[in-house]
Amino acid sequence: MEVITLDYGSGGKKTSALIEEMIVPMLDNDALRALGDGAVLSGAEKLAFSTDSFVVSPYFFPGGNIGKLSVCGTVNDVAMCGAEPKYLSLAFIIEEGFPMEDLKKIVSSVAETAKNAGVSIVTGDTKVVEKGKADGIYINTAGIGFMRHNGLSPDTIKPGDTVIISGTAGDHGAAVMLARNTDLVQGELLSDCAPLNRLASALYGLGPDLRVLRDPTRGGVATTLCEFTEGRKFSIELREKDIPVSEGVAAACDILGLDPLYCANEGKLLAVVAPESAEKALEALRSLPEGQNAAVIGTVTENHPGKLVMRTAFGGSRILTKLAGDQLPRIC
Amino acid sequence: MEVITLDYGSGGKKTSALIEEMIVPMLDNDALRALGDGAVLSGAEKLAFSTDSFVVSPYFFPGGNIGKLSVCGTVNDVAMCGAEPKYLSLAFIIEEGFPMEDLKKIVSSVAETAKNAGVSIVTGDTKVVEKGKADGIYINTAGIGFMRHNGLSPDTIKPGDTVIISGTAGDHGAAVMLARNTDLVQGELLSDCAPLNRLASALYGLGPDLRVLRDPTRGGVATTLCEFTEGRKFSIELREKDIPVSEGVAAACDILGLDPLYCANEGKLLAVVAPESAEKALEALRSLPEGQNAAVIGTVTENHPGKLVMRTAFGGSRILTKLAGDQLPRIC
Repeated sequence: MEVITLDYGSGGKKTSALIEEMIVPMLDNDALRALGDGAVLSGAEKLAFSTDSFVVSPYFFPGGNIGKLSVCGTVNDVAMCGAEPKYLSLAFIIEEGFPMEDLKKIVSSVAETAKNAGVSIVTGDTKVVEKGKADGIYINTAGIGFMRHNGLSPDTIKPGDTVIISGTAGDHGAAVMLARNTDLVQGELLSDCAPLNRLASALYGLGPDLRVLRDPTRGGVATTLCEFTEGRKFSIELREKDIPVSEGVAAACDILGLDPLYCANEGKLLAVVAPESAEKALEALRSLPEGQNAAVIGTVTENHPGKLVMRTAFGGSRILTKLAGDQLPRIC
Repeated sequence: MEVITLDYGSGGKKTSALIEEMIVPMLDNDALRALGDGAVLSGAEKLAFSTDSFVVSPYFFPGGNIGKLSVCGTVNDVAMCGAEPKYLSLAFIIEEGFPMEDLKKIVSSVAETAKNAGVSIVTGDTKVVEKGKADGIYINTAGIGFMRHNGLSPDTIKPGDTVIISGTAGDHGAAVMLARNTDLVQGELLSDCAPLNRLASALYGLGPDLRVLRDPTRGGVATTLCEFTEGRKFSIELREKDIPVSEGVAAACDILGLDPLYCANEGKLLAVVAPESAEKALEALRSLPEGQNAAVIGTVTENHPGKLVMRTAFGGSRILTKLAGDQLPRIC
């Protein structure tokens, strides 16, 4: 079996061969083919810029792999800023002994996902570390987008606003955790890993009625909404019965002792919109396949300033806090 | 001793505390304080974009540390594209058990180096992996610059051009290798790790007489110059006696069995310039403290197309090739 050896990371002949013969052709574009220290690109007056490292374990999981995730994660962060994602960087840290075949699959997923999302991988880096100094492969991506909607921020949220999710909650976290527990039957539970830029773009037309966008990754829906309310003069009230959770995720969370609201999502967005635009926002999301399960899940109120409150299915209510410890290590 | 535990990477309360109470205040700037999914920035018509991951071992070395290196590496790649570096992203992968005190020193170096280089760290990410799944700390930076000099490329090199280095060769590689061999006396050998954007900027004024800029990192001066000549119709002839190498580096390379021309540099640039501008380029470099040892080291000729040729101190000549294997693993 062909594996990555240390000299693939030396900056010498083997590094060049790996990059020029395998990685660059798969990610085909002019900027990357120039093979400079960086890419020279056309710009815009206002930019969004974001980065994430991906250390997910296992690096192949139902519904995706670390390559797909690395593109989606940064595309989504850029889109949540109100920008159209344009360019991505791609940096590998690979453990010595990593199967070349797995690397090919991962790069192929990167290429396919970038194409789907309409972004170009324009610059990159490859490092190799000794056996035992990583866990297979880690990937960093950084992304540049051109601003399309200015002023998205939790600061613009007002009492009366509507909280919308673009689909079912907790899919990525539940799928990865189930994949780690290989003794459990895995059924058809898939990560929701997907680019969100088309959904985000469909909402930019709401103008200032769109207050904020966020993709609830690590820490899940609950942690993201807590970040919106924390230190602010409003609260968010969620209605448990309105939050879409797939049967598979609900069952997996039961088995694993997890709460879907704290499970990571990698293909869902939360939007807070003015109440008069809620219907329009829902329609815009549902008109796209990746938003067909979009739902209104809560309302902004003045009842418990700074808090996230859950109205339970049984009519009670409880305060939700940010994820404290590490419920799901290495989920992304 | 306070150490990084897995829950610092959870995306929950501890992650927020680490980022908001330690990292963000040290790197103080408005974009980062907004703590969004990404930064919203003013742009430009043409951009340079580059990324590198840093896995250097040891992460503290004479003359720098992984934090300083992470800023310099990307600032330099952007500057070599002909751009003024403006914004950096900063992403940590930290091994569980990493000393908090070391992280503080590293972030502090990042902040100081970014300030010296005139760039802002505007977005970031922190992941924590289990003990044994990394080697202390890995850092990725990506950088955006605004283009100031278009068309830098080895394709513009012409026979008769002059090859200049901004200072002594091999300092970073030799210093790090010596630091790994702690049984050897380390003397005063320091990495040259430094931002190169002021030197690069001093050369942009040469216009088209400046053909190409490159920082000879992994693989050293020889590998970088081979990348210039490879597959092209000219050769580069280096004059061994003209290549500045410090006494300390020469001695260390003797002991370690290394060649300074293949040792990484992290604060030196190679410039190819038209012969009529060579004197002006040297003056511009030498007018800055980081360029005081700048020297003409070679000439572009048509004698051995595609080759890098060394005229030795003894009057002979030999062909230099790209670094083949991994002479210096994890040097950056």
